[in-house]
Amino acid sequence: MTTVHGYSTSGNCHKLRLLLEQLDRPCRWVEVDSSRGETRTPEYLAKNPNGKVPMLELDDGRVLVESNAILCWLAEGTSFLPSDPWQRAQALSWMFFEQYSHEPYVAVARFIRGWTPPDSPRRADLPQLRERGHEAFAVMERHLGGHAWFTGPEYGIADIALFAYTDVAGDGGFDLSPYPALRDWLARVRATSGFVAMPAPPREVQALLDQSQ
Amino acid sequence: MTTVHGYSTSGNCHKLRLLLEQLDRPCRWVEVDSSRGETRTPEYLAKNPNGKVPMLELDDGRVLVESNAILCWLAEGTSFLPSDPWQRAQALSWMFFEQYSHEPYVAVARFIRGWTPPDSPRRADLPQLRERGHEAFAVMERHLGGHAWFTGPEYGIADIALFAYTDVAGDGGFDLSPYPALRDWLARVRATSGFVAMPAPPREVQALLDQSQ
Repeated sequence: MTTVHGYSTSGNCHKLRLLLEQLDRPCRWVEVDSSRGETRTPEYLAKNPNGKVPMLELDDGRVLVESNAILCWLAEGTSFLPSDPWQRAQALSWMFFEQYSHEPYVAVARFIRGWTPPDSPRRADLPQLRERGHEAFAVMERHLGGHAWFTGPEYGIADIALFAYTDVAGDGGFDLSPYPALRDWLARVRATSGFVAMPAPPREVQALLDQSQ
Repeated sequence: MTTVHGYSTSGNCHKLRLLLEQLDRPCRWVEVDSSRGETRTPEYLAKNPNGKVPMLELDDGRVLVESNAILCWLAEGTSFLPSDPWQRAQALSWMFFEQYSHEPYVAVARFIRGWTPPDSPRRADLPQLRERGHEAFAVMERHLGGHAWFTGPEYGIADIALFAYTDVAGDGGFDLSPYPALRDWLARVRATSGFVAMPAPPREVQALLDQSQ
């Protein structure tokens, strides 16, 4: 059985849980708390020298890393990844957008608010992260003005990739009220068959999120 | 004929020029100087709301953005992208690694040194960018200890994606002497059929690169 090494409240990891549920494909989930250095042990680094979650491990020991590459691998041959080459390229384009122009702002703002101490100097980065995150949401809003999904005519892995951190953007201090099409799309994703929400973060993280600016 | 909108001395743009040359596929190149705001005009933003280069435009007006998604589209059905699903996924994994764990440090350090004034406050970021860039090179070095290429058994688009900014890492103040396998791989890429190097940067940029710390 395929094994996912992941941290349940990481959006990058939750992408895989969501797709695997929707594919009705069982897997073994090994919880790896990247916030406590568990991706930096010699054992973990031997499998993934880049020291990040998620990591997919096959029964024969072969390993695949990078959340969006894993989504592509799992979705190959299913309706979650279009077979039309142009549509596939567009879906990939949105997945690269997610990793370059969205996640480094939206996910990192959430991480700083919930996973660093209230006096962390990294909190000084929040205004700029928010500005860039809003630029990403504006690009998504514009696309959603004329399209129901990011993957193609149907819901699929580009939607899953972009949904993961957008759905918890509030944790990063983002207000999504200026983006009505984005909020409608989030609701459409939540209504897809087999949808599972990201688990709540640990209590001490939630306390920081609740009290943070 | 396919049109590439790109800035010739951007590594992300040069990826496309290199692959198109190696595919012997003619294209029209429209120079867009992103460092002078040419990706932020209303005309450009109408085609690519994310305001970045490169951008591929088909004769019928359809547009594809994100350098690595464009590489996948152009390489589909050629030896530059493996047909084996696991190998494809590994190639994609390296391309996501490039955009998340490599380019934001290696390319951005180069940009700050060559494209911002000597007194730019962004120069304070250079030490941290260098540290992260070296982490990426170490991951690459380790892979290259056991493999000739990043794309699969053959040279291909994951190599092109990683080559673009690694080959000009010196512009970012990176010393690659600790990475012998990486330097051998750079030489192998330069020796591939149809290889073209990135053009030299504009004179004023080169002057800044030469004088910068």
